[in-house]
Amino acid sequence: MRRAKEASRSVGLLSDARKREALLAIADAIDAHAAEVVAANALDLERGRENGLSDGLLDRLTLDASRVAALAAAVRDVADLPDPVGRMLDERTLPNGIRLQKVSVPFGVIGSIYEARPNVTVDIAALALRSGNAVVLRGGSAALESNRALVGLIRGALNGVGIDPEAVQTVDDFGRDGARALMAARGVVDVLVPRGSAQLIETVVTESAVPVIETGAGVVHIFLDASAPLERSRDIVVNAKVQRPSVCNAVETVLVHQDAADRIVRPLVAALQDAGVVVHGDAEVARRAEGVVPAVADDWATEHMSLELSMRVVPDLDDALDHIRRYSTHHTESIITDDEASAERFLAEVDSAVVMANASTRFTDGGEFGFGAEVGISTQKLHARGPMGLPELTSTKWLARGTGQVRP
Amino acid sequence: MRRAKEASRSVGLLSDARKREALLAIADAIDAHAAEVVAANALDLERGRENGLSDGLLDRLTLDASRVAALAAAVRDVADLPDPVGRMLDERTLPNGIRLQKVSVPFGVIGSIYEARPNVTVDIAALALRSGNAVVLRGGSAALESNRALVGLIRGALNGVGIDPEAVQTVDDFGRDGARALMAARGVVDVLVPRGSAQLIETVVTESAVPVIETGAGVVHIFLDASAPLERSRDIVVNAKVQRPSVCNAVETVLVHQDAADRIVRPLVAALQDAGVVVHGDAEVARRAEGVVPAVADDWATEHMSLELSMRVVPDLDDALDHIRRYSTHHTESIITDDEASAERFLAEVDSAVVMANASTRFTDGGEFGFGAEVGISTQKLHARGPMGLPELTSTKWLARGTGQVRP
Repeated sequence: MRRAKEASRSVGLLSDARKREALLAIADAIDAHAAEVVAANALDLERGRENGLSDGLLDRLTLDASRVAALAAAVRDVADLPDPVGRMLDERTLPNGIRLQKVSVPFGVIGSIYEARPNVTVDIAALALRSGNAVVLRGGSAALESNRALVGLIRGALNGVGIDPEAVQTVDDFGRDGARALMAARGVVDVLVPRGSAQLIETVVTESAVPVIETGAGVVHIFLDASAPLERSRDIVVNAKVQRPSVCNAVETVLVHQDAADRIVRPLVAALQDAGVVVHGDAEVARRAEGVVPAVADDWATEHMSLELSMRVVPDLDDALDHIRRYSTHHTESIITDDEASAERFLAEVDSAVVMANASTRFTDGGEFGFGAEVGISTQKLHARGPMGLPELTSTKWLARGTGQVRP
Repeated sequence: MRRAKEASRSVGLLSDARKREALLAIADAIDAHAAEVVAANALDLERGRENGLSDGLLDRLTLDASRVAALAAAVRDVADLPDPVGRMLDERTLPNGIRLQKVSVPFGVIGSIYEARPNVTVDIAALALRSGNAVVLRGGSAALESNRALVGLIRGALNGVGIDPEAVQTVDDFGRDGARALMAARGVVDVLVPRGSAQLIETVVTESAVPVIETGAGVVHIFLDASAPLERSRDIVVNAKVQRPSVCNAVETVLVHQDAADRIVRPLVAALQDAGVVVHGDAEVARRAEGVVPAVADDWATEHMSLELSMRVVPDLDDALDHIRRYSTHHTESIITDDEASAERFLAEVDSAVVMANASTRFTDGGEFGFGAEVGISTQKLHARGPMGLPELTSTKWLARGTGQVRP
């Protein structure tokens, strides 16, 4: 990791053009060596099957030719983004004549701990390099061969364009000790971005001495207010659950105002069931609709990440706000209403990264927000909140130019 | 601390005028009950003398009538600052018609762990309330009675203007367990700001599960380049050391380019000694000046915070940058030079919160930067870097207003 720190000094000073050049070289290398990546990945998949990985995990682990091509394309997209380094964020001249400038600078070294998704290896490396940072990676052991192949290609490409390959490192060979070393490397690693399960993120946040940007976990709520129109409610809830159920901005819990329950619960549950969703409902939901699984206490805190959804009838907006306060992971919540006062109260009082009125929670996304790329979705309040783009991978520095000023 | 979280909900929604009203009531209460504060402080001072506290610590602990009046005046100054909540930081309409706004919001609950300076109790409470936050305080046990009196006045004042007094709390009665509970209160306390010694800050950064804003420690360097003019060098170094030696932006180490050493070292050391400074120098300094204490290895990493200064002759700018990389706490460094290329290289390559050319390091200060108040000086790269004003005590939230949009 010391070598990553050293490499970060030269990488941090690279011009926009040189960083673009590096990324395009990486994309070309991935394309040119796609067969090797697929072969390395086959070894991981074989071991994964022997170890009894679930179909879902095996699918996330898989890199076939088209997915490798998509990886290279994603790197080219990142290359095309504007350089986030050197932006002038503030500029002032003090009464004594000192000229102050606040400029964006790279963090230095970004660490990432993630699970068996080899695409994250390429994603994070590309985003880190584009923002002038070195990166130390700790991928899941299930993707060891795939990650080794990809990191080898990235380092080879950097070397080929005359950039210190130590800027991209992996501690995968050290297993859990590698992860522990990363979390302890305060002063060498500047920020740690965990990506993966809620449990992984919890471990990193609790154990790391390096500052962490917490991403991801989403127990996301939609509240259907008394005035919520049926059609809009149905469209948004079904979209927010079904369009891609395995992601963090998918809805997990729907709260229905009791004054809307008779009107909305039955057709909404039916629409969800038609789309293949299992609805876990409280007694007030169950008595209004067929085929509802009785909700248990755990359901309210569960991020299903599948075609399952929790539903509850609440007396009013205050109770909805209470429920959200208790169970939300502060990612995204949305209210469906025609009552502007309710909408504005919900927007003001819900303490989440993104708070919506009359829109699908699936829009919480760096791409949808127009950031061009997404580093993750921060659910913490420090440094970045909500979808993070490249600028969130930079820090700032004050430059002060004087002519000999001293403090009286 | 749960009650602070609850109070933070109403405090976060207070208008600018209500927050000003609260602060002015607090200032009035401090003025009206100054004698009680001084009496409570006398108990702490008596106990401190019995426990053999140093004169320096006793001085920091002391609240006499004029210091209490200054505390109240500082609260009024904070009341006059613009509200940092509700600023519109970004605004965009997506192609699908969703209106996005990024607004500043309070963190919620700010925790602070600090040492025996009762003025910090009032400072942090005022800054937290002005930015719509609740606050949980853990002051040093040496200031127990003073802090209890001040927190009582603050809570009484809040109550008097109809604001939930639970917004300002102390865990001082729980001693070290209170500090531990604060550091473990992830999800209840949103950010922790330690203020005090390097050791205190190190402990909090290492042990806290709550995100920390690291402030303060300053092993600050000034590099005198080959072209550094003697008079400017002398004025700036003496000012940076002597004007207020006990603060974090005071210079600790002076590095002298060897091509300037014969010209500068002798008169610079003499000027420092005339001002009462003990110079710890390497052999190259010692052979050019009288009365130099031989520097030992530890000197380079020492934040003296007193009229002592370390001085070293280095072969060139690269060696100065190496030395700074190794020993700097990334607070403030300054180069004195007439060579613009050297200045720009120093500004670009030194990785500190504030990097200066031809100015005294004492200017790294929220007041000097024009922020009106200073929450502390962040030496970390996440969220805030350098002097922090009120805006740095806020987070952000995305508001999304739609008309039924779903993701295709």
